[in-house]
Amino acid sequence: MSYQITISQSGREKIFQVETGADLLEIINKSDFYLPSYCGGQGICGKCRVLMRPEPEAKDPEREMLSSQEIQVGVRLACLHQVESDLEIEIEEGGEINILTGEEEVSCSLSPGWQQSYLKIEEPELYDQRSYLTRVFEKAGCRSIEPRALDRLEDIVEGKFGPMGKGSDNNSRSKSTQALAAVIQDEKVVDLRSADRPGRLLGAAVDIGTTTLVFYLLDLESGRQLAVDSAYNPQKKFGADVITRVQHTQGNPEGINELRDTLVKALNRGLVDTAAKVGSGTDDIYRLTLAGNTIMLHTLLGKDCEKIARSPFVPLFSEQLSFRPEALSLKLNPGGEVELLPSISGYVGADITADMLATGVGDSPEYQLLIDIGTNGEIALGRNDKIYACSVAAGPSFEGGNISSGMAALPGAVDSFKVFDDDLEYTTIKKEKPRGICGSGLLDLIGGLLEIGIITETGALQQPGSMPEFWQKRYQELEEVKALKLFSEGESQGEREIYLTQKDIRQFQLAKGAIRAGIEILQQEADISKEEIKDVYLVGGFANYLAPEMACRIGMVPEVLSDRIQQAGNGAGAGARMMLLNRKLAEKARELKEKTSYLELSSNMKFQEEFTSQMSF
Amino acid sequence: MSYQITISQSGREKIFQVETGADLLEIINKSDFYLPSYCGGQGICGKCRVLMRPEPEAKDPEREMLSSQEIQVGVRLACLHQVESDLEIEIEEGGEINILTGEEEVSCSLSPGWQQSYLKIEEPELYDQRSYLTRVFEKAGCRSIEPRALDRLEDIVEGKFGPMGKGSDNNSRSKSTQALAAVIQDEKVVDLRSADRPGRLLGAAVDIGTTTLVFYLLDLESGRQLAVDSAYNPQKKFGADVITRVQHTQGNPEGINELRDTLVKALNRGLVDTAAKVGSGTDDIYRLTLAGNTIMLHTLLGKDCEKIARSPFVPLFSEQLSFRPEALSLKLNPGGEVELLPSISGYVGADITADMLATGVGDSPEYQLLIDIGTNGEIALGRNDKIYACSVAAGPSFEGGNISSGMAALPGAVDSFKVFDDDLEYTTIKKEKPRGICGSGLLDLIGGLLEIGIITETGALQQPGSMPEFWQKRYQELEEVKALKLFSEGESQGEREIYLTQKDIRQFQLAKGAIRAGIEILQQEADISKEEIKDVYLVGGFANYLAPEMACRIGMVPEVLSDRIQQAGNGAGAGARMMLLNRKLAEKARELKEKTSYLELSSNMKFQEEFTSQMSF
Repeated sequence: MSYQITISQSGREKIFQVETGADLLEIINKSDFYLPSYCGGQGICGKCRVLMRPEPEAKDPEREMLSSQEIQVGVRLACLHQVESDLEIEIEEGGEINILTGEEEVSCSLSPGWQQSYLKIEEPELYDQRSYLTRVFEKAGCRSIEPRALDRLEDIVEGKFGPMGKGSDNNSRSKSTQALAAVIQDEKVVDLRSADRPGRLLGAAVDIGTTTLVFYLLDLESGRQLAVDSAYNPQKKFGADVITRVQHTQGNPEGINELRDTLVKALNRGLVDTAAKVGSGTDDIYRLTLAGNTIMLHTLLGKDCEKIARSPFVPLFSEQLSFRPEALSLKLNPGGEVELLPSISGYVGADITADMLATGVGDSPEYQLLIDIGTNGEIALGRNDKIYACSVAAGPSFEGGNISSGMAALPGAVDSFKVFDDDLEYTTIKKEKPRGICGSGLLDLIGGLLEIGIITETGALQQPGSMPEFWQKRYQELEEVKALKLFSEGESQGEREIYLTQKDIRQFQLAKGAIRAGIEILQQEADISKEEIKDVYLVGGFANYLAPEMACRIGMVPEVLSDRIQQAGNGAGAGARMMLLNRKLAEKARELKEKTSYLELSSNMKFQEEFTSQMSF
Repeated sequence: MSYQITISQSGREKIFQVETGADLLEIINKSDFYLPSYCGGQGICGKCRVLMRPEPEAKDPEREMLSSQEIQVGVRLACLHQVESDLEIEIEEGGEINILTGEEEVSCSLSPGWQQSYLKIEEPELYDQRSYLTRVFEKAGCRSIEPRALDRLEDIVEGKFGPMGKGSDNNSRSKSTQALAAVIQDEKVVDLRSADRPGRLLGAAVDIGTTTLVFYLLDLESGRQLAVDSAYNPQKKFGADVITRVQHTQGNPEGINELRDTLVKALNRGLVDTAAKVGSGTDDIYRLTLAGNTIMLHTLLGKDCEKIARSPFVPLFSEQLSFRPEALSLKLNPGGEVELLPSISGYVGADITADMLATGVGDSPEYQLLIDIGTNGEIALGRNDKIYACSVAAGPSFEGGNISSGMAALPGAVDSFKVFDDDLEYTTIKKEKPRGICGSGLLDLIGGLLEIGIITETGALQQPGSMPEFWQKRYQELEEVKALKLFSEGESQGEREIYLTQKDIRQFQLAKGAIRAGIEILQQEADISKEEIKDVYLVGGFANYLAPEMACRIGMVPEVLSDRIQQAGNGAGAGARMMLLNRKLAEKARELKEKTSYLELSSNMKFQEEFTSQMSF
């Protein structure tokens, strides 16, 4: 028996015919709609909330995870339900993703290797039989041509675009001329048009994040940024983090192709949408640069990632590579080029190379420290002669994962707290009602509670008896786990109850301890003192919202560096854009890769010791 | 009603179901079989002879063109018959084409831009996580890779070829290694294999003639020529000469695609067959160089040729161009390259540039003369600072076209004559029974008859009364045209009657007069005396068989140059092979093109005068 399932999100609606018993989360994930699931559909993380009508009876895990109000209005966890009737499912609006798209323009010299030239070619005569292409090559200073451009030349010569393109200076003595616009890469004519219908010469840079894709569209003639767009990485339906996605490919020969196709489709949609924002098509995009972690770039190429996931963690490729668009099934001008930034290792990806390009780490005679905080924390420490890099498993807590009330930096996320003995102030993204806590909020909250002594140096929540009354009132035990209920329903005006649990604090300690231990190991490897580190760049979405002094307070960054911290925004996107505008940076990116030593920490005893000792505050 | 038509040629047989009334020549031309037709199916040229069973009643033009013996055994002209019953059709064996394939090896330094390198890469370890590609790039000195080679690397890494490829020196202290064979172009890895299964690194050069295709297969590692093959250019079914083929595209939007597809199919078949001769597949071919006249190269790219056919005769392109195989649908390694030699103009093609490369015309401080004789006669005169070139319409008579008993240089063609007052000696190709006269035979015959006075200086056949008795006996009038029946049936032991008619002599005069007039004009343009011409190179199939003194006797080449004539064989094939082996010659070919001035003769009054005066012997 089959039922009709209507799914809607952000005003978009689709209808599916589904057999009895089908898993709801699976149906949603197979669709175009995005619904996160950190626990992989085990009813633990509570992230797959949807509104169902008619509402099915709530199950036990839902009664624990959802508020009574939520259950009453029909909120359920999609992973716990199967199809047993017609259903209307509403997925909460993903909203505008509040990631760092870097609206600011990057600064680097403009030398993309592409140009558009206007050529005035003379019409042939009986005593000037030079071929049409000879005329184009002579004016353009070119020596080769893309087949497609030769097709265009044929069309122009045959007047398929009408009499346009004739030069206007057909006066008495000058020869008859035809004006063309040629898109040129090096000495190659890649595209040709009649000069009165020139096209745009656009380039795109994409930061392929595990969670989000950010698209930048730039004018390669002026270097100006024309549009930015972002989207979820739809590979999320195969797992929130890279390891889960790699697992999807194990013993599943089609798995890697699914990852590839999903990503390629999203990239193409993003390119189409971003180009459309400025009234262009993807045919106007001639150069595309891509940054992303090593596994993202492997999935983009449909290459096996299992070898990255298991020791000795070796990628198939880590080089800067250039491809024709068709080789990757990407939608840009077929004569264009796709350039992948080089990666350092399996867990220090091209996004980190892009970070380095953007921040200048590896350029200076002084040591600089780069920390990219996401699910993994990638850390690089170096100067112009040598760079050391490592990757630590920070876990998803900075991105809202595995935190009871955690959420991504979306509207409604509490992104800052001020903690007092008798009060709690906070702000939310887009000033919406609080719906959860994102990474920077969590950092503020834990740092603040640490300062007023409610969390101890070892990370334990105090017994309620030792708390000020304001906090004592908020103390609860949830399934025998100590917790603070931050907003009681009436108080917050929000629709959700927001907690901080002892488990949340432990998750947070693991993350910050891993990052700090990584910094310590790199510093030891470089054999320098902390004072010799002149700049600290925090990159990644979470890093941009956090309060630098709080990062030092909780010990994630050494205290002595607190006045040297700069928040560098979306470094990967900035580096990819710089590479887009200046192809000479390809050489620099190669050099950065070559002078970076990757340190493997998984079996490094010193790291284990540091990690253990750095868990405390 | 439909009938079964069985067509066979050279032992190959195919069966077609065809509707009543279908044209037989059309059916044959649409098939894979080759049957020439100079007159385009008008029953005039008599070239489309086939053997039919059961034999239909002979029609009037057949009674004139075919011998009674031929009619009796069932020979008919395919163009005159429609399908009215089941038929078995046998097409005369095309035989081995006796064109100049140049079995000799060309001499030039070996620098094709391609190499195969053997790499020993170390297996990764936990503390050496460099990617597999990094290892390959480091050993190979490369910076980029073809997508397909990356696929191969993935396969090798995943052990899809089994445990082979492991280095044999896995002794106690050295690291475990894997041996690979990499095909490299410049700094790009184009292909990768396990070292114990290396492939060949082959290159192919093809001379795309209007009538024939010649394939050369060379080993790019040693420079050795491995195989030669040849085939008819199957575009012949659309017309024997280039102009007829261009006419096929007029008002017929699919025409140019038909020409392209026909040629591409034949090129691919030739590449497959030639590679098979040495036990290889086309995947082993990485570089392909192509010479051919301008219209052939335009049809190869599917580009409109009509602008070449009408004033001001301008080609779309004439440059040296490089393409990926897929752009031209050609079967070689997909990562390989196809290179077109540059043309001079619409009627002085890349075959002439190749001729120049092969003969060295344009290299020397002394003037040299190049004459490529085919349907068109292309002539170049120049030295290292300047070259002049022109094209004259010689007509197909040198190739056996428009000559009553003319035929291509196939087995059975009379390729030399000795003419005496009372005798006629001759030789045939492959010593077969004489079936017709090819160009060199015609030259000998007319030159000989001229010497004994049977043909006058103006080209008229004498009245029979003025002839020696031996020749008087051979005199006939065919449809009021004077003719000599060279072999009476019994005498020749052949199956055909072979004539020379007054019309044949006129055709021949047009051809030789045009070539000589071209030489005169170039000499005037260069403003030199004939004595200043140090070498004369005759190239093209006909040129190689002719007797140089006879070429001077009939006045095609100035008498004063008779001791400076060299027969240079298939110059186009030789030039294409040189370009294949040494990519630096691409630069030289460009220079040759640039220093060559093309002279348009179609409206050149001086040429018209020369032509008229040079028609006489």
